[in-house]
Amino acid sequence: MATFEEISPADFFYRNRDIAGFTSPAKAIFSSIRELVENSLDASDMLCVPSEIYLRLSYDGEENPKSQIVQGNQENQEIGTYELRIEDNGSGIHPRHIPSAFGQVLFGSKYKLKQARGTFGLGGKMAILYGQITTHKPVQITSSTGSSKIYRYKLSIDIQRNRPIILDRKIRINKEQWRGTIVEFSLEGDYFRAMPKILEYLKQTALLNPYANITFVDPKGRLYKFNRVTTTVPPPPKETLPHPYGVDVETIQRIIQVTDCRNMLDFMRTHFHRVGAIISHNFLEFAGIDMARDPRKLKPQEIVKLVQMMKRFNGFLPPDASCLSPLGEDLLKAGILKELNPEFIIACQRRPSAYSGHPFIVETAIAYGGNIPAREEITVYRFANRIPLLYDEASDVSVKVIKEINWRRYKVSPGMPVAILVHVCSTKVPYKTVGKEFIADRPEVKSEVLNGIREVARQLQLFLSRREHVEKEKRRLSVFSKYLPKIAKFSTELAEEEKEPNIEALLRSVKKFEEEGD
Amino acid sequence: MATFEEISPADFFYRNRDIAGFTSPAKAIFSSIRELVENSLDASDMLCVPSEIYLRLSYDGEENPKSQIVQGNQENQEIGTYELRIEDNGSGIHPRHIPSAFGQVLFGSKYKLKQARGTFGLGGKMAILYGQITTHKPVQITSSTGSSKIYRYKLSIDIQRNRPIILDRKIRINKEQWRGTIVEFSLEGDYFRAMPKILEYLKQTALLNPYANITFVDPKGRLYKFNRVTTTVPPPPKETLPHPYGVDVETIQRIIQVTDCRNMLDFMRTHFHRVGAIISHNFLEFAGIDMARDPRKLKPQEIVKLVQMMKRFNGFLPPDASCLSPLGEDLLKAGILKELNPEFIIACQRRPSAYSGHPFIVETAIAYGGNIPAREEITVYRFANRIPLLYDEASDVSVKVIKEINWRRYKVSPGMPVAILVHVCSTKVPYKTVGKEFIADRPEVKSEVLNGIREVARQLQLFLSRREHVEKEKRRLSVFSKYLPKIAKFSTELAEEEKEPNIEALLRSVKKFEEEGD
Repeated sequence: MATFEEISPADFFYRNRDIAGFTSPAKAIFSSIRELVENSLDASDMLCVPSEIYLRLSYDGEENPKSQIVQGNQENQEIGTYELRIEDNGSGIHPRHIPSAFGQVLFGSKYKLKQARGTFGLGGKMAILYGQITTHKPVQITSSTGSSKIYRYKLSIDIQRNRPIILDRKIRINKEQWRGTIVEFSLEGDYFRAMPKILEYLKQTALLNPYANITFVDPKGRLYKFNRVTTTVPPPPKETLPHPYGVDVETIQRIIQVTDCRNMLDFMRTHFHRVGAIISHNFLEFAGIDMARDPRKLKPQEIVKLVQMMKRFNGFLPPDASCLSPLGEDLLKAGILKELNPEFIIACQRRPSAYSGHPFIVETAIAYGGNIPAREEITVYRFANRIPLLYDEASDVSVKVIKEINWRRYKVSPGMPVAILVHVCSTKVPYKTVGKEFIADRPEVKSEVLNGIREVARQLQLFLSRREHVEKEKRRLSVFSKYLPKIAKFSTELAEEEKEPNIEALLRSVKKFEEEGD
Repeated sequence: MATFEEISPADFFYRNRDIAGFTSPAKAIFSSIRELVENSLDASDMLCVPSEIYLRLSYDGEENPKSQIVQGNQENQEIGTYELRIEDNGSGIHPRHIPSAFGQVLFGSKYKLKQARGTFGLGGKMAILYGQITTHKPVQITSSTGSSKIYRYKLSIDIQRNRPIILDRKIRINKEQWRGTIVEFSLEGDYFRAMPKILEYLKQTALLNPYANITFVDPKGRLYKFNRVTTTVPPPPKETLPHPYGVDVETIQRIIQVTDCRNMLDFMRTHFHRVGAIISHNFLEFAGIDMARDPRKLKPQEIVKLVQMMKRFNGFLPPDASCLSPLGEDLLKAGILKELNPEFIIACQRRPSAYSGHPFIVETAIAYGGNIPAREEITVYRFANRIPLLYDEASDVSVKVIKEINWRRYKVSPGMPVAILVHVCSTKVPYKTVGKEFIADRPEVKSEVLNGIREVARQLQLFLSRREHVEKEKRRLSVFSKYLPKIAKFSTELAEEEKEPNIEALLRSVKKFEEEGD
């Protein structure tokens, strides 16, 4: 007979940590850093304050990771115990919430209808959980919301019960009015293997968050500093109501449980995105639902009908983008210029669109030259809600789109130093893994990405054509300046004149033409 | 300020159903069928009984899906409400467990160290949950373990609390000693779009489960029948102990909580896979741990050291494969012959291997001709624990390996009707999504897949060389049979003889040579 058991969500993610990006010691150290950096960025974005992040990875005191060659895994890895410390200037966390926010899976502040880096309420806790199961040491959280006190907790996670265990709690006076959060914990990792991805991650994060100062000290004591180029933080996203196209029966039922509305007309205009009195009226008429009906008395089949009619009604307005916080073309360019220093750059922000009721905005940029490597294939930088996506490139919607484009049409050939950046902002990025590795190709998202890339690619084409033209002119001019003096000299001798004609003027007229062409 | 909240695991997966494979109405109907078929196959495999699965998808009474053109999603889809019914001859479920087994996420019988199709305890419930949020109708479960009674439950899921709600319960006398489970529920779906994938899924499932009878009646009343070709069911996998290379601190702590052992020597040989008295002794000596030490008194840092030493010790035996249930070369061939009817087929079962303590076996097969399509690229059938994997091919380890192989070496060129099958069995298949779309490329798994494919590819190469030779001979023979009679006639006339020489004997001698070459 089968034996049945119940497991806690912490236990579930502990057993299936692969799906959250904690596959190997190298991936685990990368994912830990990434999840904590993203939490920190979210915490300062919330206050609209330019981020200040200080990250330190060091060898854990007693250990000398170099000497640890693991035999069991049948391959040689440099695995060691590391201490990770991250400090931010974000909003801080109310002391009441600190234990659960760091020691309980599926507890969080991000289950909201607005754009945020984190959405699963999982990543930070997975990092701490991973630290715990590999080092058996507690995590230490220090936080203040800028009030008169600073709180410090020592925690561990009871995985089987999914509850935090508070081991220690200290309160200090906050003399300097410090605000932010510090997370410190130990974990097993393989920094040597993770290093390239970590540095790439930080570089790309700096690129798309040009208002952030990020400092990273690695275990060898090397300092990596990514400085902000602007203090402009994009306006924070607002929380939004669900759009009628995106709701299901469960959503409606939850709203009914809490609504104060006593008729359907009010119900529709109170709880749904961009539904006013007129649209509410038209919709209920279309759906054949009595406007005076008390929503709390709807029968199950009426709720199903309501949802189905919502999907079929043609008169709802598309979702607006106030719940989104795209970067904007200027910040996008600033970030790319800072990190890649290209010869040419163009950025484009598409208009808001939506897939099954979830609004999204696609931003694209294309850059040429500078520090961009000249590869066989175009270099692609993928971002979702300002997070760089570094794994599973082949499955990502942007890479698929770029592969489908006929680049010769845009004068782009293999070996050119071309980079494309795609940034998808949404209240719900269609990730396919909890580890946020790649974006699924929803048709609506795919078409926006395609149009966004085409738009910047056309500008690149113009640039490349102009460049080609200039090159041609330069070659022509070099021919002139090489032979004209000789012709002048020869003609002078032939005409038995003494003074050669002034060829400078001639050359200048040619050059002038070239400058006009530039 | 941030507001914090806790959500239940059911709520988590409801909000993130994309990661479990419930992205769109088409994908949802596919995933529902797949999850329920897999549960049914697991339920009969457990008893070592050839599976008998009856699956029916029909339009839900009141609805006419053809007329439902959805406007909201900005693309025309044929979405309708369907009723899904699946009946199996599996083990049945004890009535006490029925409500939670179908109405509570993270409750299940599959959190064991042995091979099973399901591993997340999630899929079947996600299907039911999806049905509920799209149709607001309860699920009906009928089950008997073959005892004197049949139980029928009507359930729905309280998503916010992650608890089943029992709406109705009936008990009948089991006159015919029926054993099995019937699941019936309604869901919104898009069968028209899902159809190709569903049929492909059933075909591939039949291919890798040649002892299963699968009947599918689709909404148009079309009958698809996949008949078994054998009643041999591979021996069921055994539950196993954790291998020392695969444990972490949390595992050790859980074992300590329940152990009866009073010294480390017993502890090691009682709770770990393939650790006997001698290995236990050698290991503890290597690790510098006192053999008489009471495991329940280990300090946190000692547990960490124990785990680290386990990873470093060279003397553990590799995991054995008794917890795995590979198909075997004969069944593999039988399945492929049945579904693809190829001219040539070869299968190979690799020896057991392991990645971080999890045992796995790779099985490969290569087939040529028959119903295999002649495509530019090789057709790849991917399986994990007898489940066909149909999505995200580009990210899968097998596809990556196949792309890296130089196929010209094996005389395989584009356009040939070649199919490769890869089956990975493991107690823990390294999936990257909860929807089980593809296998991550762990180095150990990758190298086994590569070797497995090479092994069958060499056999294909021999076959193709021989075939090439035969073709050449055939051409030679056709030249002979075309010109010999003419030459004979001409010579006869030239020699002014009346009777032509017997060229049949000559032709036969050439042909004989050809047959020898075959």
